[in-house]
Amino acid sequence: MQFNISLCGIVFLIVASAAQAQTPADNDWRTIDPANTLYMDLDTGRIIIELAPQFAPRHVDNIRTLVREKYFDAQRINRVQDNFVAQWGDESIAKPLGKAKRTLTAEFTRSAVGLPFIALPDPDTYAPQVGFVDGFPAARDLEKGQAWPVHCYATVGVGRDNDSDSGGGTELYVVIGHSPRQLDRNITVVGRVVRGMSLLSSLPRGTGDMGKYEERSQHTIIRSIRVASDLAESEREPLEALRTDSKRFAEQTEARRNRRDEWYKVQAGHIDVCNVPLPVRKKK
Amino acid sequence: MQFNISLCGIVFLIVASAAQAQTPADNDWRTIDPANTLYMDLDTGRIIIELAPQFAPRHVDNIRTLVREKYFDAQRINRVQDNFVAQWGDESIAKPLGKAKRTLTAEFTRSAVGLPFIALPDPDTYAPQVGFVDGFPAARDLEKGQAWPVHCYATVGVGRDNDSDSGGGTELYVVIGHSPRQLDRNITVVGRVVRGMSLLSSLPRGTGDMGKYEERSQHTIIRSIRVASDLAESEREPLEALRTDSKRFAEQTEARRNRRDEWYKVQAGHIDVCNVPLPVRKKK
Repeated sequence: MQFNISLCGIVFLIVASAAQAQTPADNDWRTIDPANTLYMDLDTGRIIIELAPQFAPRHVDNIRTLVREKYFDAQRINRVQDNFVAQWGDESIAKPLGKAKRTLTAEFTRSAVGLPFIALPDPDTYAPQVGFVDGFPAARDLEKGQAWPVHCYATVGVGRDNDSDSGGGTELYVVIGHSPRQLDRNITVVGRVVRGMSLLSSLPRGTGDMGKYEERSQHTIIRSIRVASDLAESEREPLEALRTDSKRFAEQTEARRNRRDEWYKVQAGHIDVCNVPLPVRKKK
Repeated sequence: MQFNISLCGIVFLIVASAAQAQTPADNDWRTIDPANTLYMDLDTGRIIIELAPQFAPRHVDNIRTLVREKYFDAQRINRVQDNFVAQWGDESIAKPLGKAKRTLTAEFTRSAVGLPFIALPDPDTYAPQVGFVDGFPAARDLEKGQAWPVHCYATVGVGRDNDSDSGGGTELYVVIGHSPRQLDRNITVVGRVVRGMSLLSSLPRGTGDMGKYEERSQHTIIRSIRVASDLAESEREPLEALRTDSKRFAEQTEARRNRRDEWYKVQAGHIDVCNVPLPVRKKK
């Protein structure tokens, strides 16, 4: 009997929350800027990436230029390392560039000043504070005055060699496993995949060193990468993201910190920054 | 020039460490007990699971019984949810059991008393303390006197319905994404995959509710699951794991907390329990 009462309680909560969802609170959602949206098309489907110029303005600009020079078209996903990253681009440095740069000064961190930061209340293993900036998981160190995007599942970054300034965007990677937070502040993060992650995460793993494929025939060919704003409106797929500075996002995160559904017997009471859902939907 | 000197320093460290590795310190490695080893064979290859009876003795016993009754043979991987779990077993509850039980009393936590626990010094988002027990990532709460295995990439657990005691091992899952630590203390963990994770992590994702496949034809068929000790010695693949209570493991973990290779510009100074490598190799 008590079980039934609990269940009714849950149903009531869901109904109440659905009703609330139909109130005109849709400024809880922001349109993802087409100028910061990349469409990466494989034979198997489309991956959509939201770029983060607030963290890496130079790299984002350069990646847009690379895309406009069709740099990535017919390039290959040549590395898929289990529980780490999938990587693509021109590892042979053979394809000529136009105005795009091959290397740029690193953008590992930025000033925390003036950056709208929604902090999580929970302790983090790697940073003094973690939270969200405009939909991106992030960290900051107020003593040092620095902020940076953190490596979660779906984070997109810029491959580089040993030198800090040896990357520019000609090779990109996405996290496909447990968050490799040791990369934070060591590499330039340029965005995150908001659609189509499973097209990358389910690729066969490379069996060579660092997950490189041993045969060129194993590579996945990229048909093209385009900036959404370069396409006619009719060819775009407009998306919107739940604003991470909205009350609804705060409520959703709190409901994840302390799960109230019947299945959970112990509430975690905390949440890892990489376990917080960042909802994205088709724009209405 | 300074760059070259640094590189030489690194080379020296590697050589020194390789020399040390050839000293007779091989009691740093423990043989994985064949009685706690499962071979799960797919058409694509073998997955090897180490069971954790120190955390879930009843469930491990029952899983051995299920395996010996050939319960899992010709069963299917019927759920692969991106960034969460792959799951297999008999969701229709159609296959009859012999002596094995369908449900058991839950084993979510155990007493921390008498449990050899190698603690990490770093803060954790979810537990008062995290570390390792006999090669398994784990947590403990000394105030409550409890310990439990934590959900990392490759952790294997027992699916259940809403009731705590509704699982028994007839449905098993493995974590294929970022660690879903909210499951800790809510579900019985029975071990971890020590070989062949990529056979599970690279499976196509199910497009149905909770990552279930929508068509039965999309399932991956399990040829068989066997307990290694039930096979002739000649048919086994003996493995050994780096002892998590060894000095070498402590040194390796410290080298990951503060990476000394040239590529890293900022040392994390910390490590997440799920980012610590747990080396397993063929037994010499």
